[in-house]
Amino acid sequence: MTYVYLFRHGIAIDRELCPHDRDRELTAEGRKKTRTIGEKLYQLGLRASLILTSPLVRAHQTAQILADCLQEPPLEVVEWLAPEGDFAAWEAWHDSHRGVEAVFLVGHEPDLSSWAEVMTWGQVSGNILLKKAGLIGLVTYPDQPLRGTCTLFLLLPPKILLGL
Amino acid sequence: MTYVYLFRHGIAIDRELCPHDRDRELTAEGRKKTRTIGEKLYQLGLRASLILTSPLVRAHQTAQILADCLQEPPLEVVEWLAPEGDFAAWEAWHDSHRGVEAVFLVGHEPDLSSWAEVMTWGQVSGNILLKKAGLIGLVTYPDQPLRGTCTLFLLLPPKILLGL
Repeated sequence: MTYVYLFRHGIAIDRELCPHDRDRELTAEGRKKTRTIGEKLYQLGLRASLILTSPLVRAHQTAQILADCLQEPPLEVVEWLAPEGDFAAWEAWHDSHRGVEAVFLVGHEPDLSSWAEVMTWGQVSGNILLKKAGLIGLVTYPDQPLRGTCTLFLLLPPKILLGL
Repeated sequence: MTYVYLFRHGIAIDRELCPHDRDRELTAEGRKKTRTIGEKLYQLGLRASLILTSPLVRAHQTAQILADCLQEPPLEVVEWLAPEGDFAAWEAWHDSHRGVEAVFLVGHEPDLSSWAEVMTWGQVSGNILLKKAGLIGLVTYPDQPLRGTCTLFLLLPPKILLGL
Protein backbone atom coordinates (compact mmCIF):
# COMPACT_ATOMS: atom_id res chain seq x y z
CA MET A 1 0.00 0.00 0.00
CA THR A 2 1.00 3.61 -0.59
CA TYR A 3 0.41 6.67 1.57
CA VAL A 4 -0.72 9.54 -0.65
CA TYR A 5 -0.65 13.09 0.71
CA LEU A 6 -2.49 15.74 -1.32
CA PHE A 7 -1.07 19.12 -0.30
CA ARG A 8 -2.53 22.42 -1.50
CA HIS A 9 -0.04 25.23 -2.22
CA GLY A 10 0.39 27.99 0.37
CA ILE A 11 -0.88 31.57 0.26
CA ALA A 12 0.23 33.31 -2.98
CA ILE A 13 0.24 36.94 -4.14
CA ASP A 14 -2.99 38.34 -5.56
CA ARG A 15 -3.92 37.76 -9.16
CA GLU A 16 -4.03 41.55 -9.70
CA LEU A 17 -0.34 41.80 -8.79
CA CYS A 18 0.77 39.15 -11.26
CA PRO A 19 -0.80 38.98 -14.70
CA HIS A 20 0.43 35.44 -15.37
CA ASP A 21 -1.31 33.02 -13.04
CA ARG A 22 1.42 30.41 -13.49
CA ASP A 23 4.03 32.84 -12.11
CA ARG A 24 2.31 33.84 -8.87
CA GLU A 25 4.74 33.39 -5.96
CA LEU A 26 4.04 32.56 -2.34
CA THR A 27 3.79 35.58 -0.05
CA ALA A 28 6.17 35.91 2.89
CA GLU A 29 3.31 34.71 5.12
CA GLY A 30 2.62 31.82 2.74
CA ARG A 31 6.26 30.72 2.84
CA LYS A 32 6.45 31.00 6.61
CA LYS A 33 3.23 29.09 7.30
CA THR A 34 4.08 26.40 4.78
CA ARG A 35 7.48 25.92 6.43
CA THR A 36 5.96 25.69 9.91
CA ILE A 37 3.51 23.07 8.65
CA GLY A 38 6.28 21.11 6.91
CA GLU A 39 8.34 21.14 10.11
CA LYS A 40 5.39 19.92 12.18
CA LEU A 41 4.64 17.16 9.69
CA TYR A 42 8.25 16.01 9.98
CA GLN A 43 8.03 16.18 13.76
CA LEU A 44 4.88 14.00 13.56
CA GLY A 45 6.82 11.36 11.67
CA LEU A 46 5.50 11.98 8.16
CA ARG A 47 8.00 11.07 5.45
CA ALA A 48 7.89 11.32 1.66
CA SER A 49 9.52 8.85 -0.72
CA LEU A 50 9.12 11.57 -3.31
CA ILE A 51 7.23 14.79 -3.96
CA LEU A 52 5.38 15.49 -7.21
CA THR A 53 4.35 19.07 -7.89
CA SER A 54 2.36 21.21 -10.27
CA PRO A 55 4.67 23.37 -12.40
CA LEU A 56 3.01 26.60 -11.25
CA VAL A 57 5.38 28.73 -9.19
CA ARG A 58 3.25 28.82 -6.02
CA ALA A 59 3.02 25.02 -6.01
CA HIS A 60 6.66 24.46 -6.91
CA GLN A 61 7.75 26.80 -4.11
CA THR A 62 5.46 24.96 -1.68
CA ALA A 63 6.94 21.63 -2.78
CA GLN A 64 10.50 22.95 -2.31
CA ILE A 65 9.71 24.05 1.23
CA LEU A 66 8.18 20.65 2.01
CA ALA A 67 11.22 18.90 0.52
CA ASP A 68 13.42 21.07 2.76
CA CYS A 69 11.46 20.05 5.85
CA LEU A 70 11.20 16.34 4.93
CA GLN A 71 14.92 15.64 4.43
CA GLU A 72 15.06 16.32 0.70
CA PRO A 73 13.19 13.50 -0.99
CA PRO A 74 13.30 13.63 -4.83
CA LEU A 75 11.12 16.43 -6.22
CA GLU A 76 9.57 16.08 -9.66
CA VAL A 77 7.48 18.59 -11.64
CA VAL A 78 4.54 17.03 -13.47
CA GLU A 79 2.27 18.91 -15.86
CA TRP A 80 -0.74 16.82 -14.86
CA LEU A 81 -0.86 18.53 -11.44
CA ALA A 82 -1.41 21.99 -13.01
CA PRO A 83 -4.94 23.45 -12.52
CA GLU A 84 -7.64 21.39 -14.24
CA GLY A 85 -5.31 18.47 -13.59
CA ASP A 86 -5.38 15.14 -15.33
CA PHE A 87 -6.63 12.41 -12.99
CA ALA A 88 -6.03 9.71 -15.63
CA ALA A 89 -2.34 10.73 -15.72
CA TRP A 90 -2.19 10.39 -11.93
CA GLU A 91 -3.80 6.94 -12.21
CA ALA A 92 -1.20 5.95 -14.81
CA TRP A 93 1.64 7.29 -12.61
CA HIS A 94 0.29 5.37 -9.61
CA ASP A 95 -0.08 2.16 -11.65
CA SER A 96 3.57 2.30 -12.67
CA HIS A 97 4.86 3.19 -9.15
CA ARG A 98 3.14 0.57 -7.00
CA GLY A 99 6.10 0.07 -4.65
CA VAL A 100 6.27 3.68 -3.44
CA GLU A 101 5.80 4.05 0.30
CA ALA A 102 4.64 7.66 0.57
CA VAL A 103 4.13 10.27 -2.13
CA PHE A 104 3.19 13.94 -1.79
CA LEU A 105 1.20 15.59 -4.59
CA VAL A 106 1.41 19.39 -4.40
CA GLY A 107 -1.24 21.14 -6.44
CA HIS A 108 -4.44 23.14 -6.64
CA GLU A 109 -8.09 23.28 -5.79
CA PRO A 110 -10.65 22.10 -6.68
CA ASP A 111 -8.56 19.32 -8.22
CA LEU A 112 -7.03 17.87 -5.06
CA SER A 113 -10.23 17.57 -3.01
CA SER A 114 -12.04 16.23 -6.09
CA TRP A 115 -9.33 13.61 -6.57
CA ALA A 116 -9.67 12.61 -2.91
CA GLU A 117 -13.39 12.17 -3.43
CA VAL A 118 -12.90 10.09 -6.58
CA MET A 119 -10.30 7.92 -4.82
CA THR A 120 -12.54 7.37 -1.80
CA TRP A 121 -16.07 7.36 -3.23
CA GLY A 122 -15.62 7.16 -7.01
CA GLN A 123 -17.38 10.46 -7.65
CA VAL A 124 -17.18 14.19 -6.94
CA SER A 125 -19.59 16.15 -4.75
CA GLY A 126 -17.41 19.19 -4.09
CA ASN A 127 -18.08 18.82 -0.35
CA ILE A 128 -14.51 18.52 0.95
CA LEU A 129 -12.91 21.78 2.10
CA LEU A 130 -9.14 21.89 1.54
CA LYS A 131 -7.55 25.18 2.59
CA LYS A 132 -4.28 26.60 1.32
CA ALA A 133 -1.39 24.61 2.90
CA GLY A 134 -3.97 22.04 3.98
CA LEU A 135 -3.39 18.31 3.63
CA ILE A 136 -5.41 15.22 2.74
CA GLY A 137 -4.06 11.74 3.59
CA LEU A 138 -5.17 8.58 1.76
CA VAL A 139 -4.05 4.98 1.59
CA THR A 140 -4.05 3.20 -1.77
CA TYR A 141 -3.92 -0.60 -2.10
CA PRO A 142 -1.93 -2.88 -4.41
CA ASP A 143 -3.90 -4.46 -7.25
CA GLN A 144 -6.83 -2.12 -6.67
CA PRO A 145 -7.92 0.70 -8.96
CA LEU A 146 -7.58 4.27 -7.66
CA ARG A 147 -11.31 4.99 -8.00
CA GLY A 148 -13.52 4.35 -5.00
CA THR A 149 -11.20 1.99 -3.10
CA CYS A 150 -8.83 4.20 -1.10
CA THR A 151 -9.01 4.93 2.62
CA LEU A 152 -9.30 8.55 3.74
CA PHE A 153 -7.53 8.91 7.09
CA LEU A 154 -6.57 12.58 7.31
CA LEU A 155 -8.02 15.98 6.39
CA LEU A 156 -5.91 18.62 8.06
CA PRO A 157 -6.68 22.33 7.92
CA PRO A 158 -3.50 24.41 8.30
CA LYS A 159 -4.70 26.07 11.51
CA ILE A 160 -4.43 22.79 13.43
CA LEU A 161 -0.67 22.59 12.95
CA LEU A 162 -0.16 26.36 13.10
CA GLY A 163 -2.07 26.58 16.39
CA LEU A 164 -0.05 24.04 18.37
CA MET B 1 -24.86 26.82 9.88
CA THR B 2 -23.77 24.38 12.55
CA TYR B 3 -20.36 22.88 13.24
CA VAL B 4 -20.76 19.18 13.94
CA TYR B 5 -17.89 17.26 15.54
CA LEU B 6 -18.11 13.47 15.49
CA PHE B 7 -15.81 12.16 18.22
CA ARG B 8 -15.07 8.46 18.71
CA HIS B 9 -14.68 7.25 22.30
CA GLY B 10 -11.15 6.67 23.66
CA ILE B 11 -9.37 3.38 24.31
CA ALA B 12 -11.48 1.09 26.53
CA ILE B 13 -10.75 -2.12 28.44
CA ASP B 14 -10.86 -5.39 26.50
CA ARG B 15 -14.12 -7.17 25.87
CA GLU B 16 -12.77 -10.23 27.68
CA LEU B 17 -12.37 -8.22 30.88
CA CYS B 18 -15.92 -6.92 30.88
CA PRO B 19 -18.78 -9.21 29.89
CA HIS B 20 -21.23 -6.35 29.35
CA ASP B 21 -20.12 -4.29 26.35
CA ARG B 22 -22.14 -1.29 27.54
CA ASP B 23 -20.14 -1.15 30.78
CA ARG B 24 -16.61 -1.16 29.35
CA GLU B 25 -14.65 1.75 30.87
CA LEU B 26 -11.81 3.76 29.38
CA THR B 27 -8.35 2.52 30.32
CA ALA B 28 -5.97 4.85 32.18
CA GLU B 29 -4.22 5.42 28.82
CA GLY B 30 -7.58 6.06 27.14
CA ARG B 31 -8.52 8.66 29.77
CA LYS B 32 -5.13 10.37 29.57
CA LYS B 33 -5.01 10.56 25.77
CA THR B 34 -8.60 11.73 25.54
CA ARG B 35 -7.87 14.52 28.04
CA THR B 36 -4.76 15.63 26.16
CA ILE B 37 -6.77 15.77 22.94
CA GLY B 38 -9.59 17.68 24.61
CA GLU B 39 -7.11 20.21 26.00
CA LYS B 40 -5.47 20.68 22.60
CA LEU B 41 -8.86 21.15 20.93
CA TYR B 42 -9.66 23.87 23.46
CA GLN B 43 -6.26 25.46 22.87
CA LEU B 44 -7.04 25.45 19.12
CA GLY B 45 -10.23 27.40 19.75
CA LEU B 46 -12.79 24.62 19.37
CA ARG B 47 -15.91 25.16 21.44
CA ALA B 48 -19.06 23.12 21.96
CA SER B 49 -22.53 24.56 22.49
CA LEU B 50 -23.44 21.11 23.78
CA ILE B 51 -22.20 17.55 23.79
CA LEU B 52 -24.42 14.59 22.95
CA THR B 53 -23.16 11.13 23.87
CA SER B 54 -23.91 7.47 23.50
CA PRO B 55 -25.03 5.97 26.82
CA LEU B 56 -22.25 3.34 26.78
CA VAL B 57 -19.78 3.91 29.61
CA ARG B 58 -16.70 4.35 27.37
CA ALA B 59 -18.49 7.03 25.34
CA HIS B 60 -20.03 8.77 28.34
CA GLN B 61 -16.62 8.92 30.07
CA THR B 62 -15.09 10.33 26.88
CA ALA B 63 -17.84 12.96 26.69
CA GLN B 64 -17.30 13.93 30.34
CA ILE B 65 -13.58 14.44 29.73
CA LEU B 66 -14.34 16.58 26.66
CA ALA B 67 -16.87 18.61 28.66
CA ASP B 68 -14.20 19.16 31.33
CA CYS B 69 -11.76 20.45 28.72
CA LEU B 70 -14.29 22.60 26.82
CA GLN B 71 -15.58 24.67 29.76
CA GLU B 72 -18.51 22.44 30.70
CA PRO B 73 -21.07 22.78 27.95
CA PRO B 74 -24.34 20.89 28.60
CA LEU B 75 -23.90 17.13 28.24
CA GLU B 76 -26.84 14.97 27.17
CA VAL B 77 -27.07 11.19 26.82
CA VAL B 78 -29.01 10.04 23.77
CA GLU B 79 -29.85 6.41 23.03
CA TRP B 80 -29.58 6.99 19.26
CA LEU B 81 -25.78 7.32 19.56
CA ALA B 82 -25.41 3.76 20.95
CA PRO B 83 -23.81 1.24 18.53
CA GLU B 84 -25.91 0.62 15.42
CA GLY B 85 -27.05 4.19 15.95
CA ASP B 86 -30.15 5.77 14.48
CA PHE B 87 -29.25 8.30 11.79
CA ALA B 88 -32.90 9.27 11.34
CA ALA B 89 -33.02 10.26 15.03
CA TRP B 90 -29.90 12.42 14.52
CA GLU B 91 -31.58 14.04 11.50
CA ALA B 92 -34.66 14.76 13.60
CA TRP B 93 -32.52 16.20 16.43
CA HIS B 94 -30.65 18.41 13.94
CA ASP B 95 -33.89 19.59 12.33
CA SER B 96 -35.23 20.75 15.69
CA HIS B 97 -31.94 22.42 16.79
CA ARG B 98 -31.08 24.54 13.76
CA GLY B 99 -29.69 27.45 15.77
CA VAL B 100 -26.95 25.47 17.53
CA GLU B 101 -23.46 26.79 16.81
CA ALA B 102 -21.33 23.72 17.53
CA VAL B 103 -22.36 20.25 18.69
CA PHE B 104 -20.16 17.27 19.59
CA LEU B 105 -21.52 13.76 19.03
CA VAL B 106 -19.57 11.17 21.03
CA GLY B 107 -20.12 7.63 19.84
CA HIS B 108 -18.91 4.54 18.06
CA GLU B 109 -17.60 3.09 14.86
CA PRO B 110 -18.57 2.31 12.18
CA ASP B 111 -21.55 4.60 12.84
CA LEU B 112 -19.71 7.93 13.07
CA SER B 113 -17.64 7.59 9.89
CA SER B 114 -20.70 6.23 8.07
CA TRP B 115 -22.73 9.23 9.22
CA ALA B 116 -20.00 11.56 7.98
CA GLU B 117 -20.16 9.85 4.59
CA VAL B 118 -23.94 10.09 4.42
CA MET B 119 -23.81 13.77 5.40
CA THR B 120 -21.14 14.54 2.78
CA TRP B 121 -21.96 12.16 -0.09
CA GLY B 122 -25.39 10.72 0.70
CA GLN B 123 -24.08 7.15 0.82
CA VAL B 124 -21.69 4.87 2.71
CA SER B 125 -18.53 3.35 1.27
CA GLY B 126 -16.81 2.45 4.55
CA ASN B 127 -13.66 4.22 3.33
CA ILE B 128 -13.15 6.76 6.13
CA LEU B 129 -10.82 5.68 8.94
CA LEU B 130 -11.77 7.14 12.34
CA LYS B 131 -9.49 5.99 15.15
CA LYS B 132 -10.36 5.93 18.85
CA ALA B 133 -10.35 9.52 20.18
CA GLY B 134 -10.29 10.70 16.57
CA LEU B 135 -12.47 13.52 15.32
CA ILE B 136 -14.44 14.39 12.18
CA GLY B 137 -15.56 18.00 11.55
CA LEU B 138 -18.51 18.90 9.31
CA VAL B 139 -20.54 22.01 8.57
CA THR B 140 -24.31 21.70 8.14
CA TYR B 141 -26.42 24.38 6.46
CA PRO B 142 -29.79 25.89 7.39
CA ASP B 143 -32.75 24.73 5.30
CA GLN B 144 -30.71 21.89 3.80
CA PRO B 145 -31.20 18.21 4.52
CA LEU B 146 -28.40 16.38 6.36
CA ARG B 147 -27.83 13.91 3.52
CA GLY B 148 -25.22 14.76 0.91
CA THR B 149 -25.05 18.51 1.52
CA CYS B 150 -22.59 19.01 4.40
CA THR B 151 -18.99 20.17 4.11
CA LEU B 152 -16.26 17.89 5.46
CA PHE B 153 -13.42 20.10 6.73
CA LEU B 154 -11.60 17.96 9.33
CA LEU B 155 -10.56 14.34 9.82
CA LEU B 156 -8.14 14.23 12.71
CA PRO B 157 -6.37 11.06 13.85
CA PRO B 158 -5.47 11.26 17.57
CA LYS B 159 -1.74 11.00 16.90
CA ILE B 160 -1.69 14.47 15.31
CA LEU B 161 -2.71 16.19 18.54
CA LEU B 162 -0.83 13.73 20.77
CA GLY B 163 2.38 14.23 18.78
CA LEU B 164 2.59 18.02 19.05
